[in-house]
Amino acid sequence: MTIIVDAYGGDHAPLEILKGACRARDELGVTITLTGSESGIRTCAQENGLSLNGMTILDAPDVISMEDDPMEIRRSKSNSSMAVGLRALAAGEGDAFVSAGSTGALVVGSTFIVKRIKGVKRAAIASIMPSDTVPFLMLDCGANAECRPEALVQFAVMGDLYMKHVMGVPKPRVALANIGTESTKGGELQREAYRMLSDCGLFDFTGNIEARMIPYGGADVVVADGFTGNMLLKMYEGVAAAMMKNIKEIFTKSTKTKLGFLMVKGGLIDFKKKMDYTEFGGAPLLGISRPVIKAHGSSKEKGFFSAVRQAVRTVEKDVCGEIARNMPRSSEEAKED
Amino acid sequence: MTIIVDAYGGDHAPLEILKGACRARDELGVTITLTGSESGIRTCAQENGLSLNGMTILDAPDVISMEDDPMEIRRSKSNSSMAVGLRALAAGEGDAFVSAGSTGALVVGSTFIVKRIKGVKRAAIASIMPSDTVPFLMLDCGANAECRPEALVQFAVMGDLYMKHVMGVPKPRVALANIGTESTKGGELQREAYRMLSDCGLFDFTGNIEARMIPYGGADVVVADGFTGNMLLKMYEGVAAAMMKNIKEIFTKSTKTKLGFLMVKGGLIDFKKKMDYTEFGGAPLLGISRPVIKAHGSSKEKGFFSAVRQAVRTVEKDVCGEIARNMPRSSEEAKED
Repeated sequence: MTIIVDAYGGDHAPLEILKGACRARDELGVTITLTGSESGIRTCAQENGLSLNGMTILDAPDVISMEDDPMEIRRSKSNSSMAVGLRALAAGEGDAFVSAGSTGALVVGSTFIVKRIKGVKRAAIASIMPSDTVPFLMLDCGANAECRPEALVQFAVMGDLYMKHVMGVPKPRVALANIGTESTKGGELQREAYRMLSDCGLFDFTGNIEARMIPYGGADVVVADGFTGNMLLKMYEGVAAAMMKNIKEIFTKSTKTKLGFLMVKGGLIDFKKKMDYTEFGGAPLLGISRPVIKAHGSSKEKGFFSAVRQAVRTVEKDVCGEIARNMPRSSEEAKED
Repeated sequence: MTIIVDAYGGDHAPLEILKGACRARDELGVTITLTGSESGIRTCAQENGLSLNGMTILDAPDVISMEDDPMEIRRSKSNSSMAVGLRALAAGEGDAFVSAGSTGALVVGSTFIVKRIKGVKRAAIASIMPSDTVPFLMLDCGANAECRPEALVQFAVMGDLYMKHVMGVPKPRVALANIGTESTKGGELQREAYRMLSDCGLFDFTGNIEARMIPYGGADVVVADGFTGNMLLKMYEGVAAAMMKNIKEIFTKSTKTKLGFLMVKGGLIDFKKKMDYTEFGGAPLLGISRPVIKAHGSSKEKGFFSAVRQAVRTVEKDVCGEIARNMPRSSEEAKED
């Protein structure tokens, strides 16, 4: 299996990306194709004692940054490490693409270069997140700021398949993020989506989920428009980070509190591990015809390695094929074939 | 000053409400008018040794529950403790109304019985929340699941005045909740609201705020439509509660961890106090012509007392008058006068 890696995407590129890619090659036994400045990659590897043995490099002089308009991936940044990687994926030169670069550019690039699965109206960013009980998948986390209810039903279908095949949840509980549990709650989008999700019959729709229950693992798949999903994801991360910061401060105040830390160290480490999203890797872009994984922008070695591991599972479980085979299609679409 | 209290609203009514009201009478020197079943209130007070000295009771046989359709406050539940309280407020029999009952019914009842301030299109639930640094106000937290951009500008005006006058923040930083900091981010609502908020000139608009920065106190006033605000509020509460639960479990595991707790007890208590929303009281319904405060549904004595204290400040600072005097009005509205 060949995983194409955007060596120049993310806050800690290229070094941490290369470290993660090397670890994936060594531990997962996959072939890695790197995209990015070839001379930059070689220099970085040499300076840091990383072996590029068995890796191919596709030279890409440009980098698409967080500040660039995502559409630039089709224009002035068509020779960026991300664009080159996506073209290689589309051409079948690898089985999956992993990038920690700009989410917006990755969505645009994947949609226009790799293309969506037939019948899928919108690709979605699906984030796997920790909860008090089991990890859950939330989608869309930001690919589509505005959605129609039909798109939310497609997100539910894709999220259900992902949790079943990649995460091994036999019967995922699929819920709609909403401001109340009753079917009449929310705006027009939520009310109509509730009706369509109830009628769909392709997954176990458990109704609306209030945001308060999400961190307790109240659903395996949380369906939302990209605006809401992104707000929820970032609020989750923000509150968790702010609280962790405070807890750390409490323990590092004095010799006495440091002693206190030693007494609860085991429990705290387990808790930190439980809350650590880098354990779960990145966010798959569901609905794209070949596997594309968005690693967190702040990924270091471990986070990027996890994202590659997730790409491997996505390939092994043929998630794209499952979606293509199971996505319901309108009669017009079926006729077009 | 007379505060009208819904004795039958909330999960712990009437006992905890009565306790909070008694404490407010004793500590804040305000007159309390209670609404609800007179016999029920008297029995509860007697059984729990609470003195109703100096309190008036407006008998209201019904209770509007969380399960009732909010519109019922205008129909079958027009003799509920909430409806009776709102009519008393509208008739000038008190200076403010405080209820821990159904948010939806309180919004409907306040709008139809007490009425909005002239020029205000939509009333908003404004929640004061803790952050890593300073408390902030988020509005709307659920009165309006769908909003037009004009409403978001009015929320900004009202939130700014509230933070200035009640919370004593000289120049509140007003920000729009969005999925990115750039003006082009979000849906049509956010893009248009961004433009209008930038042009308004009545407050210090600092641009978009991502959800990740909200728990760090990145803005004093966070403006959002009611759907988004409600999701953010509940996600905040949910993550904080789930983490607190885990931390508690870590410390109560064994004798050793309990000893560890003793060593960081002071810091943990301070942290818990910092994160405790009951310190801040309830959520004012901004845009209503007289002060209405929504106490948290789970309010106990302390939380309800804080909500009454907040009502007192809202009256003292004449927040409703400030909003009425400062709300920009269209030329059509001005002509109508």
